[in-house]
Amino acid sequence: MPKQVDHQERRRLIADALLRVAAGNGLEAVSLRHVGAEAGVTSGMVQHYFRTKEEMLLFALEVVGERVQHRLAAEDHTTLAPAELARALLVQLLPLDAERYAEGRVALAFHAYAAVNPAIAAVLRENSAWLRSHLAELIGTAQARGHADAGIDPTSTATALQALVEGLNLHTLGKHYPPETALQVLDAQLDAVFHRGAAEVQ
Amino acid sequence: MPKQVDHQERRRLIADALLRVAAGNGLEAVSLRHVGAEAGVTSGMVQHYFRTKEEMLLFALEVVGERVQHRLAAEDHTTLAPAELARALLVQLLPLDAERYAEGRVALAFHAYAAVNPAIAAVLRENSAWLRSHLAELIGTAQARGHADAGIDPTSTATALQALVEGLNLHTLGKHYPPETALQVLDAQLDAVFHRGAAEVQ
Repeated sequence: MPKQVDHQERRRLIADALLRVAAGNGLEAVSLRHVGAEAGVTSGMVQHYFRTKEEMLLFALEVVGERVQHRLAAEDHTTLAPAELARALLVQLLPLDAERYAEGRVALAFHAYAAVNPAIAAVLRENSAWLRSHLAELIGTAQARGHADAGIDPTSTATALQALVEGLNLHTLGKHYPPETALQVLDAQLDAVFHRGAAEVQ
Repeated sequence: MPKQVDHQERRRLIADALLRVAAGNGLEAVSLRHVGAEAGVTSGMVQHYFRTKEEMLLFALEVVGERVQHRLAAEDHTTLAPAELARALLVQLLPLDAERYAEGRVALAFHAYAAVNPAIAAVLRENSAWLRSHLAELIGTAQARGHADAGIDPTSTATALQALVEGLNLHTLGKHYPPETALQVLDAQLDAVFHRGAAEVQ
């Protein structure tokens, strides 16, 4: 009986190999040959699953998104206040461990690549809009509960928090300061938005 | 009499050509040939001024820094309060016009490239440390004058403002929102740090 190949699984293995190549050498280094070698398969096999480099990159972006979702799902959020939920989301974007460091480097490469690739740019915009509106909702909920100043604009504040973390990510990846500094700065800014001590007690 | 060539001027013309190539096609597209063609000189002439791609990139980074300094020097800062000085510095990093849009794209490419080039990484770190300490000084001065809350930490707040602008830059370049949104978000955050109305009157 022929061995049953799990196509979805093989696509994922190839995407994981792509992410390792991209984290190590940038998206320019991503080619059928390099990714195939990293995944331990032939270039032809890579091309069987992904007709173009763009298709492969788009799938790799999806995989990164799923990884973040997976890490978030592993935590118990049911009892968290909006401020802590916002923090849980935002720290996923900081390079605080090896996995997020590699993802951060790949994300940075994707941002640079988006300038010359509209399909990649569209996915990044969509992900970014989702995070921004989700953060704005959390800020609105905190305001309704009296756990954030009623005077701040949820959308503007959400945009600021998201941009803050993006910049902290960039500077931490470039070793402008250690990850702990980025985390301290994020926490100070979250404290300025949310009444975090109060938010724990409901 | 042989024509006197202004070497510094020609280096600068080549660096300008490099920045145009990088803004249009990314740093990967930067080669002796491409940059020479863009500058209207031969590859050999480019190599006469810059022995390696890295030398050319480092000089181009210097040129970007000088451009920002030049734009800042064109404004009269002698009467500005710390809050307005901080704003003047930070808006130079937002892609609010064609020149800063091109610079922003090049800066993003440099950040991605820094991951694989220690010399570029070192220059970016140095520039970043300068801006951070300068912003922290401005916040400290505003605090001493009663134009910012005494309770905030100048260094942490400076790091946050710098990261904020870096993230706003990245998202604006990616057209996640228009430049006006980035400017509004920056102004709201500056208002949260400085008592800006008060700071005008001394």
